[in-house]
Amino acid sequence: MASIFTKIINREIPAEIIAEDENYIAFLDIMPLFKGHVLVVPKQEVDYIFNLEDNVLAGLHVFAKKVAKAIDNTIKCTRVGVAVIGLEVPHVHVHLVPLRTMDDINFTRPKLKLTPEELKAIADQIRAGF
Amino acid sequence: MASIFTKIINREIPAEIIAEDENYIAFLDIMPLFKGHVLVVPKQEVDYIFNLEDNVLAGLHVFAKKVAKAIDNTIKCTRVGVAVIGLEVPHVHVHLVPLRTMDDINFTRPKLKLTPEELKAIADQIRAGF
Repeated sequence: MASIFTKIINREIPAEIIAEDENYIAFLDIMPLFKGHVLVVPKQEVDYIFNLEDNVLAGLHVFAKKVAKAIDNTIKCTRVGVAVIGLEVPHVHVHLVPLRTMDDINFTRPKLKLTPEELKAIADQIRAGF
Repeated sequence: MASIFTKIINREIPAEIIAEDENYIAFLDIMPLFKGHVLVVPKQEVDYIFNLEDNVLAGLHVFAKKVAKAIDNTIKCTRVGVAVIGLEVPHVHVHLVPLRTMDDINFTRPKLKLTPEELKAIADQIRAGF
């Protein structure tokens, strides 16, 4: 069965897409730790990041860097943190989280609840940062 | 002034080094979240990961993958998580943390206190996993 992320890639379910190329896609996490929390995903559906081929893994992080720069340019934060956990959705995803303190990347914290309008406004802001 | 990680690279302060090549080094975090928590560091002293050149960033993650595989092979865990926060030491470092639950990569948790002998035993175990 296609993962929820493959369904986003295939436009079967909606998402606020921030950037996309042939191999990778970035979109807003709908349960963000912080405003501007983005997921970066390889289009290839692999569960575990360290099972990606070296070139796919390398490309994923170079793509994530472009997205992180756009977040840095548009969202008020000290820097953009990176996390890959992968115990939930079985399709590689890199969390990019705008940080101010160590606790901003604590995944056991309650998630923000944002409306579709709020998510769209954040996505528009980041999309303008490229 | 050289960062604490540059001092480790230069063998000015000790560390349990897990792997090293011309451009990168991996060693045990001395304040681990979990047994087998490793830091992967580029030898180039740059503060913010997204200021690394694309090829250095890509190489860092490919090097980290080799280390993560060695951790997977030797430390009991569900998978190896990845985090880059960087609000403390101003020299890029990728945390590789053996995970069982989402809370295992929560950096606000109390750190483990391990003796030098315990750290050496863990390092020996991971070094045997390549």
